Amino acid sequence: MGTARVVFDRWDGRYAERMANVRSSAVRDLFAAASRPDIISFSGGMPAVDHVPAEAAAMAAHDAIMHERECALQYGSSEGRPEIRSIITELMAENGIRLSPDDIVVTAGAQQALDLLAKTFLDPGDVIITEGPTYVGALQAFSAYEPDIRCIPMDDDGMRIDQLEAELRKLGPRGAKFIYTIPNFQNPAGVTLSAERRRRLLELAREYDILVIEDDPYGRLRFEGGHVKPLRALDDEVIYLGTFSKIFAPGLRLGWMVAPKPIRAKVLLAKQAADLCGSAFAQVTAERYFMGTRWRRVLQGLSRTYAERRDAMLEALDEHFPAEARWTHPEGGFFVWVEFPSFLDTGQLLAEAVEHGVTFVPGDGFFPDGRSGRNCMRLAFCYAQPESISEGIRRLAEVIEDRLELYRAFIAAGAIPAPEVA
Amino acid sequence: MGTARVVFDRWDGRYAERMANVRSSAVRDLFAAASRPDIISFSGGMPAVDHVPAEAAAMAAHDAIMHERECALQYGSSEGRPEIRSIITELMAENGIRLSPDDIVVTAGAQQALDLLAKTFLDPGDVIITEGPTYVGALQAFSAYEPDIRCIPMDDDGMRIDQLEAELRKLGPRGAKFIYTIPNFQNPAGVTLSAERRRRLLELAREYDILVIEDDPYGRLRFEGGHVKPLRALDDEVIYLGTFSKIFAPGLRLGWMVAPKPIRAKVLLAKQAADLCGSAFAQVTAERYFMGTRWRRVLQGLSRTYAERRDAMLEALDEHFPAEARWTHPEGGFFVWVEFPSFLDTGQLLAEAVEHGVTFVPGDGFFPDGRSGRNCMRLAFCYAQPESISEGIRRLAEVIEDRLELYRAFIAAGAIPAPEVA
Repeated sequence: MGTARVVFDRWDGRYAERMANVRSSAVRDLFAAASRPDIISFSGGMPAVDHVPAEAAAMAAHDAIMHERECALQYGSSEGRPEIRSIITELMAENGIRLSPDDIVVTAGAQQALDLLAKTFLDPGDVIITEGPTYVGALQAFSAYEPDIRCIPMDDDGMRIDQLEAELRKLGPRGAKFIYTIPNFQNPAGVTLSAERRRRLLELAREYDILVIEDDPYGRLRFEGGHVKPLRALDDEVIYLGTFSKIFAPGLRLGWMVAPKPIRAKVLLAKQAADLCGSAFAQVTAERYFMGTRWRRVLQGLSRTYAERRDAMLEALDEHFPAEARWTHPEGGFFVWVEFPSFLDTGQLLAEAVEHGVTFVPGDGFFPDGRSGRNCMRLAFCYAQPESISEGIRRLAEVIEDRLELYRAFIAAGAIPAPEVA
Repeated sequence: MGTARVVFDRWDGRYAERMANVRSSAVRDLFAAASRPDIISFSGGMPAVDHVPAEAAAMAAHDAIMHERECALQYGSSEGRPEIRSIITELMAENGIRLSPDDIVVTAGAQQALDLLAKTFLDPGDVIITEGPTYVGALQAFSAYEPDIRCIPMDDDGMRIDQLEAELRKLGPRGAKFIYTIPNFQNPAGVTLSAERRRRLLELAREYDILVIEDDPYGRLRFEGGHVKPLRALDDEVIYLGTFSKIFAPGLRLGWMVAPKPIRAKVLLAKQAADLCGSAFAQVTAERYFMGTRWRRVLQGLSRTYAERRDAMLEALDEHFPAEARWTHPEGGFFVWVEFPSFLDTGQLLAEAVEHGVTFVPGDGFFPDGRSGRNCMRLAFCYAQPESISEGIRRLAEVIEDRLELYRAFIAAGAIPAPEVA
């Protein structure tokens, strides 16, 4: 990990005020540690790119340049090539969302879409609503535009709509710029917003006239349970974010945004200012991969792999984790969210866990206040092999057990109160 | 082209204030028109990607996935891969700038670097200094952060340093956040900042304690005259922006920023928020291309091609353009800047020019006020073949001549005053 050294900065005081709000992501800081070969990583949400058929992808990239050099190597349009937007409409149609290619803007991963939406909508102090905990990258993207972020807690059915309604009642009509939600296999909580709550969320958004941003990176990675219709399929004013990172490869940095026309026009201006245009090379490569590969079969295999890894993690948690811990049971995606009694600060366990050869992400990074979620952790099951997952959870349990022993002794001695059972 | 239709926008009034400052780029709006096969385009600064050796580039892309799939398809580090940063240090060393790979951040083209620097430094109302005219994309990137942009005019030796000094004296120490300059073959003016003025600019920047951003996309495309040392070679606090767009291909969206360590740290946070990381796929592909190709020879061929096109344009201008026009004589790069008497508004010529099968960029887009430069145009000689260039300039001269005839008649009749001769 390393200790933070104070570096003299002769430009201190000259940065924009927004930079005071932009924190480094704990997830990213962990990537360095996680790359040590002896470490079992539950930290990064890194897809299993070893499942991408190498020859098919390599030939797609090769042919992109050999056969479409004038396009693949040149500047492209800001909205992205019609060809890839057409493929995206097919993907979306399978998901119950009927679109024209014109409805779509291709972005540098869904992360760029988050940044562009924040840039387009947020003045300092504007209220936005997210789940709590929520995606670290969204917090980073939004925070740079200095909003007032209100977090709505979740249960096993996703965002607590009663609490959303209470918040909206306080804020009033148009009282927030948008509601940001990850309805499927939420990052980091792993839970899925129920169909009934989706309908209710949209009713409330209409009633209070507030935009909804639906971020759906994991929707195609369901291992069990029935498909739940995306918000965008129920309401065409919803802004929908998709990505090729989980159905092809994050290394291409390709994602997309579906949005109503006037919003798309603003976002395109913001995108021109941000990078002129996306990578035509990546777009042509992805087009050729999706046209020339049995990618559905690849995705099925990938889902099975992730399902095995989730099973390995849930089994290992059952076997090794202490009775005081509770965790979610995701039906898809990449993540399990673990909650410990409030006296346990997972951030204080991290260095020791790395020494024991295992990493996770402490929970406080998933809240904008940096205080909530300290007794929680996110475990990514997507990347490690099942046997490594079992071993990693065993190691992590040891580290946790050491801490808990101490607390149990204190509680037994009456030195601290026993935690309430939820 | 088309006429702007007023579309009802039910989200009007809910966008961020900054969006009022973000204008669409005239250059980008022209791309659609420029793609008509009968049109000779002098509008976009599009590199001649048909000179990139297709098989070598295609194999680089193929092998990136076949041999480095786990890296090329995966998320990467925010600062970019050490391998490509190492190649960039070699490129920079040939340019007189000694660096370690740690000094470099890889960006999505130099455009992303402009956006990230603006995001890092600019609060609304902050003063920045640019050349006038200056790069449209820089104006777009900066404007989104609502700065007060002061433009310094140029002559054949680049930015008028006497005028820069006068502006700095008015502003006082730290009175601007940064000075943005394109010292080599400036976009759009085509002029190069002299060695003497570079030294003087740096002295002034030191004296007034103001950051300098040196944007150098065309530095390696010099056709004649001696190499002038980059600002960064003279002062290691200068922020230097480079790009692979002109020495390899824009379709990969790869550029880089050299900046002092504390500034790099801030920019990296802004970059994480913007796109998590750049494309590892593009980086590995570029690494393999630069390691496995005689790219210097390719670049020499490319420079010869651009030199022929510049010659064709300058000859055609001499032959066809009216006596009232003046234009720059670039020693490299992509652009010639043409100035007409003040009564000619080039924006009013554009539709007619397109009808005649030729495009250019009206001058006002290169000024933040949208008013200056109306009697100017930018002509890009980089993309069309020499014979097309001659024909295109002939067509353009016809359109201009039609307008001038009318004005000459008015002047002869004493209805409007004769223009001053500069």
